[in-house]
Amino acid sequence: MFVASAGVFTTGSAPAAGAAPVPLDRVVPAPASVRPGGAPYRITSGTRIRVDGTPEARRTGEYLAAVLRPSTGYALPVTPGAGSGIRLALVRDAEGELGAEGYRLRSDPRGVTISASTSAGLFHGVQTLRQLLPAAVERGTVQPGPWRVAGGTVTDRPRYAYRGAMLDVARHFFTVDQVERYIDQLALYKINVLHLHLTDDQGWRIAIDSWPRLAAHGGSTQVGGGPGGHYTKDDYQEIVRYAASRHLEVVPELDMPGHTDAALASYAELNCDGAAPPLYTGTDVGFSSLCVSKDVTYDFVDDVVREVAALTPGRYLHIGGDEAHSTSHEDYVKFMDRVQPVVAEYGKTVIGWHQLAAATPAGGALVQYWGLDSTGAAEKAQVVRAAQNGTGLILSPADRIYLDMKYDRSTPLGLSWAGYVDVRRSYDWDPGGYLPGVPASAVRGVEGPLWTETVADPAGLEYLAFPRLAGAAELGWSPAATHDWQSYRVRLAAQGPRWDALGVRYHRSPQVPWPAR
Amino acid sequence: MFVASAGVFTTGSAPAAGAAPVPLDRVVPAPASVRPGGAPYRITSGTRIRVDGTPEARRTGEYLAAVLRPSTGYALPVTPGAGSGIRLALVRDAEGELGAEGYRLRSDPRGVTISASTSAGLFHGVQTLRQLLPAAVERGTVQPGPWRVAGGTVTDRPRYAYRGAMLDVARHFFTVDQVERYIDQLALYKINVLHLHLTDDQGWRIAIDSWPRLAAHGGSTQVGGGPGGHYTKDDYQEIVRYAASRHLEVVPELDMPGHTDAALASYAELNCDGAAPPLYTGTDVGFSSLCVSKDVTYDFVDDVVREVAALTPGRYLHIGGDEAHSTSHEDYVKFMDRVQPVVAEYGKTVIGWHQLAAATPAGGALVQYWGLDSTGAAEKAQVVRAAQNGTGLILSPADRIYLDMKYDRSTPLGLSWAGYVDVRRSYDWDPGGYLPGVPASAVRGVEGPLWTETVADPAGLEYLAFPRLAGAAELGWSPAATHDWQSYRVRLAAQGPRWDALGVRYHRSPQVPWPAR
Repeated sequence: MFVASAGVFTTGSAPAAGAAPVPLDRVVPAPASVRPGGAPYRITSGTRIRVDGTPEARRTGEYLAAVLRPSTGYALPVTPGAGSGIRLALVRDAEGELGAEGYRLRSDPRGVTISASTSAGLFHGVQTLRQLLPAAVERGTVQPGPWRVAGGTVTDRPRYAYRGAMLDVARHFFTVDQVERYIDQLALYKINVLHLHLTDDQGWRIAIDSWPRLAAHGGSTQVGGGPGGHYTKDDYQEIVRYAASRHLEVVPELDMPGHTDAALASYAELNCDGAAPPLYTGTDVGFSSLCVSKDVTYDFVDDVVREVAALTPGRYLHIGGDEAHSTSHEDYVKFMDRVQPVVAEYGKTVIGWHQLAAATPAGGALVQYWGLDSTGAAEKAQVVRAAQNGTGLILSPADRIYLDMKYDRSTPLGLSWAGYVDVRRSYDWDPGGYLPGVPASAVRGVEGPLWTETVADPAGLEYLAFPRLAGAAELGWSPAATHDWQSYRVRLAAQGPRWDALGVRYHRSPQVPWPAR
Repeated sequence: MFVASAGVFTTGSAPAAGAAPVPLDRVVPAPASVRPGGAPYRITSGTRIRVDGTPEARRTGEYLAAVLRPSTGYALPVTPGAGSGIRLALVRDAEGELGAEGYRLRSDPRGVTISASTSAGLFHGVQTLRQLLPAAVERGTVQPGPWRVAGGTVTDRPRYAYRGAMLDVARHFFTVDQVERYIDQLALYKINVLHLHLTDDQGWRIAIDSWPRLAAHGGSTQVGGGPGGHYTKDDYQEIVRYAASRHLEVVPELDMPGHTDAALASYAELNCDGAAPPLYTGTDVGFSSLCVSKDVTYDFVDDVVREVAALTPGRYLHIGGDEAHSTSHEDYVKFMDRVQPVVAEYGKTVIGWHQLAAATPAGGALVQYWGLDSTGAAEKAQVVRAAQNGTGLILSPADRIYLDMKYDRSTPLGLSWAGYVDVRRSYDWDPGGYLPGVPASAVRGVEGPLWTETVADPAGLEYLAFPRLAGAAELGWSPAATHDWQSYRVRLAAQGPRWDALGVRYHRSPQVPWPAR
């Protein structure tokens, strides 16, 4: 794809006919196993996408066809039955080799076969296939090709079951279309969780029938005082449905008991003093709290958890719990002891920010660690102890993968309270060994949060998320043995032309040998 | 400095010993006249900066020495008297060839001589000399050199007397240090006006003794709700002094009668209903107005104009007057009829945004045009009529040089209500012919405004200002005959390594053939 040496770039983004196909290992996240060999397969105007009789394979086949048709200009009919071409097959995985999300991709001159024991596995295999084709395959208009897939076999499955990205739609609101665009970007990297931070001081973004002013009033502004917005239940279900079609689970977050000014402003009775504060459009944290001593607070929690759980086919409901600086420790523990059972009552499993470890995490709960290298030993010890007691851990260390941190001092937006997080720093750590004392089995995955105090539109979002999000995805998916910055930066550089083709407005970090545009 | 052809860059930012010196015409803004010829001068450890007996030449010599010493490592003593070296001389300009700000720079193996009839001219000549040395001259540590200046003569003077940049310190506050850093960046491009937008709905940024709550309360926050800030009178005088040392005049703007929420929030009596609104941290415009019918309003205006005029050695005081959507036309005219004489009473000349043309601009007043190509004919006609009647014009068309507009859809911050303003679009227009019907003599200059709704720190400011500000500077300085995008982009590209050396965090627009880093 490109040749780079110190300071000199030669262009190579449009491979000439006859150029070598993309090497089988030029994929992000790095596959678990790659065995190159044999001649490539070439997609032509006669290629068919052959699916087995299952609806899962057909659906994935139609998705793949929709990706390939605009740029190839080929018909690519999706048809059942055997034969040459691109084949998608659900298979029995008797030895459990592929797991719930793994796949095998075999390429030879007769075709490319993707097999998996689940539709998620097929889908992830299709994402790998996309990256094995020239970047131009992602364009929306017909490109010259050729469309060849290197010969060989990829056998792949994720390291962690939870590979997430969080989008803060509370500080600045993002529309359904904007969220769906992000979902498509996440799916490329086999991310399987979209965590939506739906509520914060600056906005309540989800309609609640039993407390209608939460969205109508609490969602009416945002940081900087714009008009804000909220999702109707139909909107939200559309996001959930779209995410599911890309094999992402949506985890809704209702942040409590702090970060609740939008709710407190909407209903005076939720305040200990009975007086509603004004809506808040600033960026301070830690000043608001639900009234832990009032019964109405728990009626409120029951209602919003019930309604949001009913919109959530996934397992988890995130209850926040961070930066509750206006709540005493005693009240915080009391609050969490009453609220976590409500989540269970409506059939969901609790996730909380790692401060929940200072209370008693419910059975099965996950805590999301967002500390820094410099976080105090006592706070880390609480998290380690919870993990030793069976609480699962999602790793989102702020000085590693908070996607809203500036890359360096020249980054024109973003924050820097956790320092600068350049591309290498965001990639070059191991989730398995990150918090000493945590049992390996307690680490359930990795998530890249993107807070939006300084981000008002998709251009800003994409600039901060890419390329760092690809690193978060690789940390969550790829075996530790594949971890290597020098090989990663080459694979990452190959994503540049793909992002250009897709219109993703990424940051061209000088740490990465991007091909010339 | 660099070689560029389609898509291929070769590095050349650190010229090897023996590389050709920077060509005499590789300067932004383009000099009026360049006559290359003869062998270069080389600055060595023995070089002296020789000044005539005037304090102006000595001051400029010391300034030049301070620029050159860190990177050359040479002593560069500033000494009076004749001899070889770098010579700065105030000269009589009997034929008026150089004007108030022009200079002549002659370079041959014996030395470089900068002559001018004013200290501003000497200073601008020094800026040209900086650009004729390798970019590494701007670094803060000793560099290898060699430090050669191509042989020949530059004779230069500005097209317009007013060449400005506006910084909005109201939406987000910028500290004295941050403003002074920006002043240094402006001086590089011979900009001679720093227009400070000191007051707006979101903040009042200058201490007023007679109305102390303006700064204490009205300056206590900003867009997004941060702590805001204000300049004490000492702070402000420090900025004015620093600007003067770089030959910039500070034009203070007190925006009236709209954009005044910070004042209205600070003093209830300024409101028609006598009730103070809350401080505002959003980004809407057009909702606030001073109470035109109350006498206290004019006491207020008299006080703030008097106090700010007393801090202003320059000619101008900007009274805003834009987007007064909450003021009727009749009230607007009445207000401006009462306020403009107050400015004159305290010895200053009015500048207003071009809406002032809908009232009666005072004699000698300037109006600042910020319309678009698509601005209605009636609004443009008002401005043209005012210009025909003797009102001077500063050109700041929003779809050309509003520096807060996004470059393109991928710009991660900035606004786009005036469309995208890429580097070429910001350069490729002619102030002389911009508004048909305006007499050439009415155009006094060009200004690039930078509004800070989305800009919270110097990284964001520099990303939006550079490279576009260099184009605004060139439009204000260079003769129309030098205007040429193809040659401009090459000269602009040469600024990249200078900005890198200075730590200016500019946008590496793909329209410009930047040398590889």
